[in-house]
Amino acid sequence: MARPRTFDEAQVLRAVREQFWSKGYAATSMDDLMQATGLGKGSLYGAFGDKHQLFLKVFDAYCVNSVESVKKALEGPDAGALERLRQYLLGAATASAAQANRRGCLLARGTAELAARDGAVAERALKTFQGLEATFVRCLEQAQAHGDVAPQVDPRKWGAMLLAVFRGLEAVGKAGMDEPTLRGMVETALGALPVSAKRRR
Amino acid sequence: MARPRTFDEAQVLRAVREQFWSKGYAATSMDDLMQATGLGKGSLYGAFGDKHQLFLKVFDAYCVNSVESVKKALEGPDAGALERLRQYLLGAATASAAQANRRGCLLARGTAELAARDGAVAERALKTFQGLEATFVRCLEQAQAHGDVAPQVDPRKWGAMLLAVFRGLEAVGKAGMDEPTLRGMVETALGALPVSAKRRR
Repeated sequence: MARPRTFDEAQVLRAVREQFWSKGYAATSMDDLMQATGLGKGSLYGAFGDKHQLFLKVFDAYCVNSVESVKKALEGPDAGALERLRQYLLGAATASAAQANRRGCLLARGTAELAARDGAVAERALKTFQGLEATFVRCLEQAQAHGDVAPQVDPRKWGAMLLAVFRGLEAVGKAGMDEPTLRGMVETALGALPVSAKRRR
Repeated sequence: MARPRTFDEAQVLRAVREQFWSKGYAATSMDDLMQATGLGKGSLYGAFGDKHQLFLKVFDAYCVNSVESVKKALEGPDAGALERLRQYLLGAATASAAQANRRGCLLARGTAELAARDGAVAERALKTFQGLEATFVRCLEQAQAHGDVAPQVDPRKWGAMLLAVFRGLEAVGKAGMDEPTLRGMVETALGALPVSAKRRR
């Protein structure tokens, strides 16, 4: 019979995530994870598996949460869809410029370190990027349905392009690019989105 | 008197770069570097310094080369500037989608792993991103001078936006995003760039 778990699983996984996020996968040892969580090797292995399984568990949760939080930020009536998208991306630009976010997002960091040789990580990263893209596409479709975006705009093409801008912000923000430049990238991209003739009037 | 160097410095640094690029900084030990270069610890230390100094040396060279190669790809008369920019970014999209490039670019990888806690890396990465941005801006200025880009376009704003797209391509490409989607991001971004009235006719 398995011993009852005498720890808070969510709290342990948060500590594991912080460790991987700050130090990276390779630089994190099982000893680091034991120290960060206060658990012995046996408890960690028994509950979550090895270091790779632990990483995938927190990476998975981070990826799912990333898509969910963008969906939540963008959900609402067609009427404000374009403005919600704009505010979301501007917020991402500001966040990316913050010194506290200098370590970047765990999705970007894990992908940069592991995707080339770890199919499980690459697969989850791709699915996450596609989930973010689909969320942008849906929001653009709503904006188009409301008449804020011109009928000739292909929401799928623009959703993909905005995904590139969104991930680019993250990439250059963690090198220390300043906030006005990052916000300007969003303003320029959305300023180029063709609007409906009736909105221009 | 220093012993004469009996190795090819460029070849050694290539081996060092490949090692850091494939495995990352933390996962690379001095033993790995000795094995990759065929040199003893004393020779490596004597010629280049410690692991951090070795990393900075290859990261620096990679960054300088990145900006130089973009400059070279974009240089030319005003007449073809916009088309050169388009071809360069489409080429970057194709390269980013290639399986062989799945490890991503060393600039992105090094920044993701180290910028948060290594000021020397962050400083070089930022300078590189700004160098790439300035190169795009210059190319857009040429295109505008030639009349391919509308006078109301601010080349600085568009140069920054295209930097975001360029780095975003790299970020999602290494997760396995397909080539048509990546090339489509470039086409959508440049398709939204306002062109001169005389070109539209």
